[in-house]
Formats: sequence, structure tokens, C-alpha cells
Amino acid sequence: MEQTQGITVKKSEDFSEWYSQVVQKAELADYSSVSGCMVLRPTAYAIWEKIKAVFDQKIKASGHTNAYFPLFIPEHLFKKEQEHVEGFSPEVAWVTQAGDTKLKERLAIRPTSETIIYESYSKWIRSHRDLPMLLNQWCNIVRWEFKYPKPFLRTREFLWQEGHTAHATREEAEKEAGMIMKEYIDLVESYLAIPIITGRKTEKEKFAGAEYTLTFESMMPDGKAVQMGTSHMLGQNFSKAFGIEFLDQDNKKKHVWQTSWGISTRLIGAMIMTHADDQGLIIPPKVAPLQVAIVPIIFEKNRDKTLKEAESMKNKLEKHFTCFLDDRDYTAGWKFNDHELKGVPIRVELGPRDIEKKQAVVVRRDTRKKEFVKQADLITHIKKELEAMQKSLYAKAKKTLKESITSAKTMAELKKAIKEGKLVKVSFCGTIEEEDMIKEDTGGASSRTVIDEKPGKCVHCGKQGKLVAYFAKAY
Amino acid sequence: MEQTQGITVKKSEDFSEWYSQVVQKAELADYSSVSGCMVLRPTAYAIWEKIKAVFDQKIKASGHTNAYFPLFIPEHLFKKEQEHVEGFSPEVAWVTQAGDTKLKERLAIRPTSETIIYESYSKWIRSHRDLPMLLNQWCNIVRWEFKYPKPFLRTREFLWQEGHTAHATREEAEKEAGMIMKEYIDLVESYLAIPIITGRKTEKEKFAGAEYTLTFESMMPDGKAVQMGTSHMLGQNFSKAFGIEFLDQDNKKKHVWQTSWGISTRLIGAMIMTHADDQGLIIPPKVAPLQVAIVPIIFEKNRDKTLKEAESMKNKLEKHFTCFLDDRDYTAGWKFNDHELKGVPIRVELGPRDIEKKQAVVVRRDTRKKEFVKQADLITHIKKELEAMQKSLYAKAKKTLKESITSAKTMAELKKAIKEGKLVKVSFCGTIEEEDMIKEDTGGASSRTVIDEKPGKCVHCGKQGKLVAYFAKAY
Repeated sequence: MEQTQGITVKKSEDFSEWYSQVVQKAELADYSSVSGCMVLRPTAYAIWEKIKAVFDQKIKASGHTNAYFPLFIPEHLFKKEQEHVEGFSPEVAWVTQAGDTKLKERLAIRPTSETIIYESYSKWIRSHRDLPMLLNQWCNIVRWEFKYPKPFLRTREFLWQEGHTAHATREEAEKEAGMIMKEYIDLVESYLAIPIITGRKTEKEKFAGAEYTLTFESMMPDGKAVQMGTSHMLGQNFSKAFGIEFLDQDNKKKHVWQTSWGISTRLIGAMIMTHADDQGLIIPPKVAPLQVAIVPIIFEKNRDKTLKEAESMKNKLEKHFTCFLDDRDYTAGWKFNDHELKGVPIRVELGPRDIEKKQAVVVRRDTRKKEFVKQADLITHIKKELEAMQKSLYAKAKKTLKESITSAKTMAELKKAIKEGKLVKVSFCGTIEEEDMIKEDTGGASSRTVIDEKPGKCVHCGKQGKLVAYFAKAY
Repeated sequence: MEQTQGITVKKSEDFSEWYSQVVQKAELADYSSVSGCMVLRPTAYAIWEKIKAVFDQKIKASGHTNAYFPLFIPEHLFKKEQEHVEGFSPEVAWVTQAGDTKLKERLAIRPTSETIIYESYSKWIRSHRDLPMLLNQWCNIVRWEFKYPKPFLRTREFLWQEGHTAHATREEAEKEAGMIMKEYIDLVESYLAIPIITGRKTEKEKFAGAEYTLTFESMMPDGKAVQMGTSHMLGQNFSKAFGIEFLDQDNKKKHVWQTSWGISTRLIGAMIMTHADDQGLIIPPKVAPLQVAIVPIIFEKNRDKTLKEAESMKNKLEKHFTCFLDDRDYTAGWKFNDHELKGVPIRVELGPRDIEKKQAVVVRRDTRKKEFVKQADLITHIKKELEAMQKSLYAKAKKTLKESITSAKTMAELKKAIKEGKLVKVSFCGTIEEEDMIKEDTGGASSRTVIDEKPGKCVHCGKQGKLVAYFAKAY
């Protein structure tokens, strides 16, 4: 807690260092002695709990239930679906030993759980009456990436939810994949206040083993996209590989149609990058673990009275907001900075003169505007400000996202726009080979989503394009 | 879902097979292709969610917050506290490879997280103002036991919470360890309806690395004890090994005093064994994911009317209870058995004659008593029955626990009582060596808790004993 207070670089000047300082100084995450693995500290974990609560309620309302499947996947099982194993193998952490015993078969630590879950589905699903099967699990995931780690955005272990559903028909599965996208987008836009673009992934970028992948993404202030979550239409790829069959009402055996979908602690990284500023973290009020911090301004002679008034104010406010009375042994100035650093949406200051005047000073974190508010109006005022702040954060980010979008008709235009950190609309042929070449020529831009528009000529080869997509560099 | 319905053996005749059938047929858990790892199916996971919600609220109310630490512990870190590493090494699963790369240092998969967490504490704790540090995490744990696995009670992966606190003084740490015990006992007795015995562990049975361990345990109907959870006073063992020091108010550097404590999905196993019967699972109402199942008795000619009335009943009941209208395509008789098998506390039957008479048939799961209840009284009646059931399950289990307790003054008495599946009070010398000998002589009995009573002569060597303890066979 006694670190140098405050962020020492500007968001606009050294984004990477700025992000790293916000994450550590706002006590969101810390490095551990396991390379690439982070500790989620209480504030970050509490934000994750908020995200979980919102999404969990959504999926339960639509008939999903939670379950828990093993962390380990035996190697033979992991290898059952060809595209899937090729996609994930390079990043798998393997358990080979237990105690002093060498294991007979290596165990993969789940990089995603399709294979271990669908083995169970092949046992549980027999009849059309067992469908749809709508399960979800909240768990940890390990992907041993060798790229440079970034807190929340790229860590070797992270937390997520993964939904896995099985349906009697293609139509039902496609409807499910789309319905989940709507819930994700509501979560991210209405709660995390992050605007997104959405669409299908290209052949190159889709999930290994899926028929197609739906994605929603946002642009960070440094001109890189973040894939925030995905919903996969798996078709019958896995049900054929794992033999998941059911006896339909027409008395015929059929393979089920499946979906899988996930969001992770990555969302917290996007939230930090999108909203935080040079003073530190800014948390959208709807997901803020702590909405209001009350800081009493204490002078020795009216110490008891001030604390008593602050206590009574806290008792009133905590019926409406999550609330903290900061009576820690630090100066008021230190506390102001601390709550700004940690992104508490509303700070209420209460000194002897305020008590006399039956008022309080209210400071909103994003605008940092100070207002004198009558104590009688305090609850109404804070409610209004929290709502306004939630909307304002979204509107500001939406404007930034819009401004980052452009289009390109030639590779020269595309390269220039990518260099400027833009999200660039282009027509292209859509093959994996061509996308690889575009990536190389632009120094690393990848397609983010396919857009439902009529393609013009391919930005790369100049022939008639097959699809329109957004390209950007990405985390 | 189309398995042979019903349990085919009696609880009193083949307990082990009975337990296995209840677990699988009530769809609580299923085996996976990873030896010793189970799948928690939705009902079991939902019970775990109830347990989590109750305990999470308790610890948050007393100032604890949740965090999340890495799954992996580098070998050098894991080995820092001597007793601890000796206790856990034989059961550690090791990651040695990632993708195609052999790791430079092996990574232990957490069998418990003291070592990885306390490394962070040594960075975060500087001043008395940083204390107490009261963190908890909900996570998965891996202990690669080579004994025969038992769903919920002994699996290589399980879910738990682990609290880790650091304090300025011994007194505060001891108070914390004791306070947590009280919360655990309330959870287990008031919600899971399981009566317990409680006390300290002996030197042999204490947590590897603790100064002492508090435990609470219950006796299962087959005469084996289950350790339900523990709270450890760690003293300064870990703070010295990990260098966790703070500057106290007297301006002196001191090592913190620590506790750690945990409960796991094991509790669900104890709940099943304690309450379930020959018809299947019985879930105490306070932790039942589904409290009321409405089964409409449908005859073709009044199909629509019956379903409509059942629907309207469901709409009323679900304001007070978690409620399921069972309109699945099965016979009413099949549904009755299914809800009994799965332990739903209250079943409401509604047929055309009941509708005529404005009544319903209410069946309580534990007593299986049928009552005709006026629809106007239904909510009050169900509330009363749920409360009565919760109390009755506890009272019945409490009686069984009391009856299982006896005492022994000689090894012959002890051996006989252990053979009869009793929890046996004895005086003994308390050393690890002597406890080892008692275990061997009794064919596997271990001390469960030390009791605060004046010891008589040692049951084993006949000299004056040092302490009184309960012995039993245990899971």
C-alpha cells in the first residue's frame, strides 16, 4: 500500500507503461513467480464477480445450468478432433508426473474443454428428450503462450466461462449461438460501457473445430483491437468425432448440433484500457465493487464529531450504494489520490464546515468535477451522477471507436491506416493464404470480423473480392 | 436420463454400492476418463453454489475479500517450508512440458496455496496499516492420491475455498481461526443439517506447516468419520520461511501471524451419505437447488386444463420457492420416482379431481408422507414442511452421531468399538509414534479430534495419558 502514489506517465504518451502502472498501482493484479501468470487482487476479482453475477443470471434465465468438468484432458481424448488439436497443441501445458510416479499417459491442462465435456455428452445424451443440453462452467484455463504476457489480456492462466450446448437441429444451435452473442453484447455495452463491433470470424481466425465463429471486439486507445468474446457454431464436427447421437422423434439416430461460447477476465483488461486515465483506474459504476468512498476531513479538535457525522452518512448511503468510510490513518489528500487511483466512481468529502452547512462535497471520478450538495439531496444526487457517469463513459468510448474506423482500397492505404492504429474496412478474397500475406505485408494486422456488405475488389490481389472485413492489429 | 430408475441396493446392506448408485443415478456426479477425477453435474454444482453463497456472505460480512492466485507453484517456492513440502510432495501433480518445450523448472499444481500466496504477502505487507490481510479464494485443487477414489470424498481434483489471513499479533490470528470455525459449523449444521464434533487435531493429524489445526468432523452411517473442514493456526512458520514482515506501531519489524482454512466439495459427499435413503438423494431444503416439483396428473381429455392450472400454481409458488413444473414427456409415476431419486424436498401432485376440489397432494421427500392440502393453504403448508424437514434431518442425524460415540479404556475395547464403526473416546500419550501404533493395531483408526478433558491412563501403553481424543476409521 505504500508504493509511490500516482501514475508517472501519460496514457497518450506511453500507453504500455501507463497500462502496467494502472494495473499495479490500482492494485488490480500483480506478477507472480510463475512466468506469465498473474495474481488477481481483490478489486479485479470483485469486478470479475460482478461480471459473473450479471452473465450467470442471464444464462440461467434462458435455461442453462452450471456444472464442473475435470481440469485434465487425457492426450488421446484431446486428439479426437483434428482441427481442434492442431489449433491448441502448441499452447498446451502437460502433466507428466504425480508424486514420484511417471504417468502412463500425458494429461493436457484444459486450454478449453470441448473434448472432456463432449465425452460426457456422448454418455448422457440418448433421446430427443435429453435435448437441448445447456451447460456452462466457470473455471480456470491454461494456454502456455510464448508471446510477451500482458495482465488480463494475455496470461498463461486466466478465468472464464465456457458454455457448451447440444441441440436436435442446426436451426436451434444457430439460434443459441446468436442469442448468446446478444447477451454478451448487452453485458459489455451496458455494464462495462465498452462499445463493440460484431460479426463472423474469417476462415483463418475462427475457432479450431468450429463451423463458424461469431465475435465481438473493441478498439483500445493504442490502436489495437481486443477480441472480447466468441460464440461458436460447432455444427456436427465434434458430435461426429465423439459419437454424440440421439434417437429423434422420427425414431432415427442423429448427431447433435453444438455450440460453445466464452468470455474471460480479458474483459477487465479492455475495461481498464478503455476508461482509465492519467490519474488511474476508472470503473463503470455498474461493475464497481465500491461505488462511493466517504473521506472525512479531520482536524484534531473536531475529530470525534466529524467521524460521527461521516459514520451516520455512511449508514444512510449504504442502503443505496456500496460504500466505504475511509477512516484509515492517512491524510485526506493521500486518500483522495488513492480513491482516484483505484477508480471509485464517487468520492464524498465531509469536513467541519460542510457539517455546519449540512452539505457535502461530491466528486465524480471521470469528470473530477467538484460539487457542493445538500445532505438532504445526497442520495438523489449520487444516483443521478452514477447513471450519468455510466452513460458518459460509454458515449466517450463509442466516439473513439467510431473515429478509429476507416476503409482502404489498396495495400498502401491499408498499411498507412494500420500504422495509424485504425480499424480498417477492406474487401478481400477471404482465403487463409491471402490473409496470411496481408498480415505479413501490414506488419501484423489480422481480420477482426467479417461485415455483411457487398465486397468490391480485393485489397491484396485486385480481383473481385469475396467478403468485406475489418482489419487491425490486435492483442 | 433413461438409466434404470431407482437404487437397487439398500443403504443398510451395501453402503458403498448404495452411495455409488445415489451419486450416479441422482445425476450428482459422473466418472470421467481421467482416473480419479469426477464431473460435477448440475445438481451437485448447484448445491456447491448454495454452499458458496452462504459462506461467501459470512466471510465478506467479517471483512474478507476474494482474490485469485496462480494454479502453478514453481518447485523452489513449494519447497520453502520444510514440514509443508514433506506433507504434500507425495500427492503433487507436476507440469514439466508446455507445447513442445521442456520447462526449466517443474511446476506443482496447487495441492493448497500457502506457498504461492505468501510470496505475494511478503511483497504486499509492509506496515501495521496493511494488517490484518484477510483474503480468500474459491478454486480447484489437485492432490494425486493413489487410494481408491470416492466421489466427492476422495477425488484427485476438487473445488474448495481457502482463506489466508495475516495479523499483527498471535491473539488476533487465534481469534480469526476460531471465528472461522464458528462460521463453518453454522454452515454445516444449519444449512447442510449435519451434526459435528469439533476440536484440535493431534500432532500427527495437523496440517503440514501449522502450529495447530482446528477441525470439525461427522460420522457417516457406515461408521467412518469425514473431516469436513479445517482452520489452521499457522503461527509464524510461514512468515519466517517467506519473510513476511511488517513495521509495527512501536517502529519494530515483526513477522506476521497467520491462519489458513478451507472447506470443499467434500461437504456434498457427507451430505449425501448422511441424509439419502433407499429411494435416493435427500437434500436439506436450505441448500436444495429445487425445492418444489409440481407434477400434473394428465389424462388426455383434461390435458390442457390440468396443465393450465399447474402453470398457474407454479406462478404462485415460485414467488416463495425454487419451483419446477414437470411437463416432460414421461408418465406421472416415472416423474414421482425421478424427483424422489433426485431428492427434491417437496412434490406437489395436481390431477383433475384435485382441481375440482381446489386441493393438491403434497409429499415430503424425507417422510414420504402424502397430504391433501387446500390450494389456499399451499404456500403456508409448504413453508412449514420445509422448515420441519430441515430440522428433522438434523435431529435424526444428531441422534445417529450420539449413538455412534463410545469410549474405551483398553486396546481390546478400542479394537472392538472401531470394528463396530464407533467414534471412540480414549486417553493416550499423543505422540506421533504412539498414534501410528494405535492405527496399525486397530486396522486403520486415526484420531479425529482432541477433546478438552482430563486424560486417564493411555489406552495403548497404560502410563498416564497426555490427552483425550476421538478415534475412528475415516474417509
